[in-house]
Amino acid sequence: MAALTNGNKVAPELPRKAFGLAAHDTSGLLSPFPFSRRNNGDNDVTLKILYCGICHSDLHSLKNDWKNTMYPIVPGHEIVGEVTEVGSKVNKFKLGDKVGIGCLVNSCRSCHGCTTGFENYCPVPIFTYNSVDPEDGTVTYGGYSDMIVVNQDFVIRIPEGLPLDKAAPLLCAGITVYSPMKYHRLNAPGMHLGVVGLGGLGHVAVKFGKAFGMKVTVISSSPSKEKEAIERLDADSFLVSSNAEQMKAAIFSMDGIINTVSASHSVVPLLSLLKPNGKMIMVGLPEKPLEVPAFSLIMGGKILAGSCIGGIADTQEMIDFAGKHNVTADIELISADYVNKAMERLAKADVKFRFVIDIANTLKPNI
Amino acid sequence: MAALTNGNKVAPELPRKAFGLAAHDTSGLLSPFPFSRRNNGDNDVTLKILYCGICHSDLHSLKNDWKNTMYPIVPGHEIVGEVTEVGSKVNKFKLGDKVGIGCLVNSCRSCHGCTTGFENYCPVPIFTYNSVDPEDGTVTYGGYSDMIVVNQDFVIRIPEGLPLDKAAPLLCAGITVYSPMKYHRLNAPGMHLGVVGLGGLGHVAVKFGKAFGMKVTVISSSPSKEKEAIERLDADSFLVSSNAEQMKAAIFSMDGIINTVSASHSVVPLLSLLKPNGKMIMVGLPEKPLEVPAFSLIMGGKILAGSCIGGIADTQEMIDFAGKHNVTADIELISADYVNKAMERLAKADVKFRFVIDIANTLKPNI
Repeated sequence: MAALTNGNKVAPELPRKAFGLAAHDTSGLLSPFPFSRRNNGDNDVTLKILYCGICHSDLHSLKNDWKNTMYPIVPGHEIVGEVTEVGSKVNKFKLGDKVGIGCLVNSCRSCHGCTTGFENYCPVPIFTYNSVDPEDGTVTYGGYSDMIVVNQDFVIRIPEGLPLDKAAPLLCAGITVYSPMKYHRLNAPGMHLGVVGLGGLGHVAVKFGKAFGMKVTVISSSPSKEKEAIERLDADSFLVSSNAEQMKAAIFSMDGIINTVSASHSVVPLLSLLKPNGKMIMVGLPEKPLEVPAFSLIMGGKILAGSCIGGIADTQEMIDFAGKHNVTADIELISADYVNKAMERLAKADVKFRFVIDIANTLKPNI
Repeated sequence: MAALTNGNKVAPELPRKAFGLAAHDTSGLLSPFPFSRRNNGDNDVTLKILYCGICHSDLHSLKNDWKNTMYPIVPGHEIVGEVTEVGSKVNKFKLGDKVGIGCLVNSCRSCHGCTTGFENYCPVPIFTYNSVDPEDGTVTYGGYSDMIVVNQDFVIRIPEGLPLDKAAPLLCAGITVYSPMKYHRLNAPGMHLGVVGLGGLGHVAVKFGKAFGMKVTVISSSPSKEKEAIERLDADSFLVSSNAEQMKAAIFSMDGIINTVSASHSVVPLLSLLKPNGKMIMVGLPEKPLEVPAFSLIMGGKILAGSCIGGIADTQEMIDFAGKHNVTADIELISADYVNKAMERLAKADVKFRFVIDIANTLKPNI
C-alpha cells in the first residue's frame, strides 16, 4: 500500500498487516480494504476484534456530512475484542482478556479535560478513526477491521458475564448517556428521568435509568413507540410530544431529561416538564440552533446542557455498572457483507436498536 | 379607601394605615398613596421601612411591560427596616432588629421548590408587590412605603456592621447572583468567573466573585466600562465582547459566567469562553429567544442555565456572607421626591449602580 498523505506530511508505511472495510468517497460504500497498523509498543495492547457496533456517526463520517472525512475511512468505535499482545509496560491487561475500545484512542493528557477525567473534551483528541495520530502522522482506522493496536490507557475491561456483542454499543451509545446522567446526578433511585427519542442512544438511556432505580418516561413524536417503550424496555410511562394534554399533565414532574433527538424540535415544551432546577441534557445534535427563550430557563432555574461521549474512567465505570445490572444494547447482529445494506436501513432508522457486525466470524479477506 | 377588587373577589378593607408611592396607570408615574395593611398576626413581623432599593423590574412593573400589573401598584422589593412589632409566635426577631425583605413575602410551603430551599421557584409565590395574597385577597404593596407586615419566615436578619442603605439592593440584586454562584458551585477560590454586563446585577456579581477568592473577568460591549471594572470594582480583567482578538485569547478559560444582560446578544462567543463542563447562568432576560446551536453545548459539555432570585435560607446566607466580607452595592441614595426622575435615569442606565430611596427620612405624607 502506498504511504498515506495528510496535508503536507507523508505518513510512514506501518509494519503490521490488517484488513477492514473502507469507504473511498462520499458514496460511503464500504468495500474490502487491506491496510497496516503500527507494531505493539511498550504501552500498547493489540486486540483481535470480535464485534463492532455501527454508530450513526459512522454513517455521517462515511458520507463526509461533517466535511472532515479523510478517505479512505475505516469506521467503527464500538469495538470489543480479545487481547492478543501486550507491551512490556502494560500491567492492566493480559492475553485473552476481553476488552473494548470506544471513540478515543488517545488525548493530550495535560489539558483541563484530560486532567479532570474528561478526555472526551480534550481540544486535540485522537479519535478511533479519522484522526491524525501525531506520533506517526497516520490516519486512525476504526473497528470495521480484524485487529487494532491501542495505548493501554484507552482500553476498557469488559466485565465477565456481559455478552460481548450486546456490550459493544455501550462503548459509544452507553457512555454517551451514562456520562451526563452521572455528571448531572441524574442517577439516584426515585428520581424521574425523561428520555426524548427512542433510538440507539435513547433505548440505552431507558435501561440505565431503570438500572439506577429511577422512574423513566419516554417522550417521542411517534405514538407507535409506546408499546416497545413500555413492554420491551420497561419504561414507566410514555408521552407523545405532540399531545398537548399529555404534555401539560406532566409539567414540573421530571428531575432530568436526556434528549437524544437530532431532528429539529422545540425544546420549550420539554423544559416545561422539568421540576425547579431540573436539567435537560442534549446528546442529539440538531443542525439548526435551538431556540431557547431565557424566560424558559430562568423561571424554575432550568439547566440546558450538552454532553459528548464520556471520559475513560467513566467508560470503565459505566460498563462495570452495566455488567452488574445486566444492561446491554438491543442489537441486530449482522455479517460483514451486510454492512452497506445496514447503512441504508440505519439512514431510515430501520433498526431496533443497534447493528453490530460479527467481525471475527464474518470479516474475511475474501469478503 | 375603597375596598380593592381582584377579579370577582372583593378584598376587605385592612385595619392599619400606611403610606407609600403608587403608580395608577401605564405612565408609571409615582405619586403619594395612602393605603392600608393587615394587623400584625401571630407569625408576623412589622417593619418601619428605612431604605428601599429600586430594581429594574420595578420600572417594568410600573409600566405594565409584563402585562400583569394590577394598579395601583406600590413597587419595591429591596427593603431594609427596623422591627416595630412582633407576633406572639415570632421567636427569631425582636423589637429594634434590623431586617430585610426581598422579592417574596410568602409561598405555598409544600411544593418541590418550597421544600428544597427554592421558594423562588414555587408555582404560586406571593411576591412582595403586585401579588394577590390568598389569605385575605388583597394585592401586596411593596417597599416604596413607610411600613410593611410580613410573615417571619420571609424576613431576613441584616448582620451588624453592614450599612443599611447599601445592603438593601442585596435583597434582590445580591441574591440573584449569589444563588446561582452557590448552586452551580461557582464560588471557590482560584476559579475563573466571567461577568457579562456591568449594571445593578453585574457589579454585585463581581464583588461576590472577588469575595469568594475567584479571578473575575468582566465582559461588556462598552469599552468605557473597563476603568470602573478594574479600578472601582477590582475585577482582574476586562473583555470587550466585540473585540474578536480579545475574545479568542480567552476561549476555554472560564469555569463559569454570570450573564446579566437583558439586551439581545449572541451567546455562542460567550459559551466558547468556558472550560469543559463550564456553566453560563442567565440572570438577565433578553426578550428574543437565545439561539443556541446544540454543537456549542455538546462540544465541551457546556451548561446554559437560568436563575431567578433565590430561596430564603440562601438569602440569609448571602447577606451573612456579605456582612463578613463587606460586600455591598454601590448606590446613589435619593429622596422619595426624586423617584420619578430616578426612573427616567434608570431607563437610560444612568446610575452607578443602584438607586436606593431614603424612605425613613424623606417619605412623608405631605410629599
